[in-house]
Amino acid sequence: MSLALGIDFGGTTIKSGLVEEGRIIAHGDPIPTQSLAGPPAMIDALVALAAKFGQHGPLTAMGVGLPGIVDTHSGIVHELTNVPGWVETPLRDILRERTGLTVTVENDAKAMAYGEWKHGAARNGHDIVCLTLGTGVGGALILDGRLYRGAQLAAGEIGHMSIDYRGRPGPYGNFGCLEEYIGNQQIAQRAYERYQAAGSDRLLKDCSPRKLSLAAAEGDPIAKQIWEDIGDELGAALASIVWVINPDTIVIGGGVAKAGELLLDPVRRSIRSRTLKIVNQNIRISLAELGNDAGIIGNAALALEAASE
Amino acid sequence: MSLALGIDFGGTTIKSGLVEEGRIIAHGDPIPTQSLAGPPAMIDALVALAAKFGQHGPLTAMGVGLPGIVDTHSGIVHELTNVPGWVETPLRDILRERTGLTVTVENDAKAMAYGEWKHGAARNGHDIVCLTLGTGVGGALILDGRLYRGAQLAAGEIGHMSIDYRGRPGPYGNFGCLEEYIGNQQIAQRAYERYQAAGSDRLLKDCSPRKLSLAAAEGDPIAKQIWEDIGDELGAALASIVWVINPDTIVIGGGVAKAGELLLDPVRRSIRSRTLKIVNQNIRISLAELGNDAGIIGNAALALEAASE
Repeated sequence: MSLALGIDFGGTTIKSGLVEEGRIIAHGDPIPTQSLAGPPAMIDALVALAAKFGQHGPLTAMGVGLPGIVDTHSGIVHELTNVPGWVETPLRDILRERTGLTVTVENDAKAMAYGEWKHGAARNGHDIVCLTLGTGVGGALILDGRLYRGAQLAAGEIGHMSIDYRGRPGPYGNFGCLEEYIGNQQIAQRAYERYQAAGSDRLLKDCSPRKLSLAAAEGDPIAKQIWEDIGDELGAALASIVWVINPDTIVIGGGVAKAGELLLDPVRRSIRSRTLKIVNQNIRISLAELGNDAGIIGNAALALEAASE
Repeated sequence: MSLALGIDFGGTTIKSGLVEEGRIIAHGDPIPTQSLAGPPAMIDALVALAAKFGQHGPLTAMGVGLPGIVDTHSGIVHELTNVPGWVETPLRDILRERTGLTVTVENDAKAMAYGEWKHGAARNGHDIVCLTLGTGVGGALILDGRLYRGAQLAAGEIGHMSIDYRGRPGPYGNFGCLEEYIGNQQIAQRAYERYQAAGSDRLLKDCSPRKLSLAAAEGDPIAKQIWEDIGDELGAALASIVWVINPDTIVIGGGVAKAGELLLDPVRRSIRSRTLKIVNQNIRISLAELGNDAGIIGNAALALEAASE
């Protein structure tokens, strides 16, 4: 059995785990990213993780996912989101030299999608769209049985596609971006406005998606309608993707997806009503399965695959 | 030098040509599709073309593109658009048996994109979006250096993606589809309405995209504004595709694209304003080069590739 170390390097914490056959057999303690002063200390921490987990048995490979622009082919981290100091860092080669392991580096959203494909909800899919709904709306594509990265390795930014070309302006010049409708904070904001307009003080102190799910589950009509709207908007974006990419699998994860069927049901209806039956009847649309472990498992799988090449 | 026969089987005419090194060295006479009574007569005509072109020299392969649902893998034509009688026809095997050649069958839009990739405007691209603007708005994708077909071989239907999720209803249940804005007839209709609203009788008898191009070239402000609007709408759809697919090449062909820079200039501006510079500065956006020959050349190239496998 091959053992691989998967590392999910986030802006807030560094999560790690020892993975065997797609399962985490030992979790590392989460390390607060900001507790480490700059890239050299962070790299030391990654090397220490490899040494620590190597005590369980011989490691074959180590995969690191990072939030930012990561060139998988050259192994260079060009820039990280919310973690300063990472500029053109040849992370793969540094880690390979210091640990002796096969090392891969990958963008975090792509690694999570890879995990769901190899060991989660997108298992056995061939043309897959993975979405993560949180503060941002991110995504990644597996196309024709391969992780698809795009010309500048920037593919999968589903949150920035537009569902209304004359809609409100988003942060990068586009109008009516999906994220402006269904990002975590935008959901809270519209819920606040909806309750206020209805003269209700039900959720005005905390309109988070979590509270909104609880309210909808209790039958609150405003909350239910908001989830309907969110599902229709997300479904509209996914329907466009269905027309263009014709996937067999759509997987939706992230904090906002914890709404479960409250979200998934209107998403399915929206996609079904906006696309052809011959196509939509064959799409599997489901929630992500691996949760917070998707990055660890995906990075370990990517590293193992690189080791076997 | 390998000789291949490329056939572009359309609802109106069957076009054919003998292709050597990506160039048509002899055109067949166009055959009116409706002059042939049903699939058996049409298949006879294709076999006769192979015999006729075989007199030029030994043919290696024969590629046929068709407007409809074509399963390249099995070689079966499931159904054709506007050509009745084609139901689950194993065209590849029939033609292979009757001609002795390597035969491929492909959807027409995908074959045209393949032609532009191998021998036209998308040459040397790796992640390519091809668009055809006419009565319908069709498309095809080359991703990661391979023709991408999708789960039901239905990928690339860019005309049915939505640019306004609450826009006017389209034919297949979606709202605000690109085709409802920039299809040939929709352009004529909006031009008609725009001139009428302006009290002008300039183009009211013929508002075709061709007349509209002439008027804009002469400086007519209404015509210029219509092309600006069309470019912005098409650019908005392509910007969403850029966020999701991150292509290196976008090629635009078809009758409406004869407007040239009148269309391309606002398309480029729209994409540039709606996406990140790191991505959009690297995209080549150009007009198709092969015109009506793209299908013939693409099908011949697909067939040659199959013969060399």
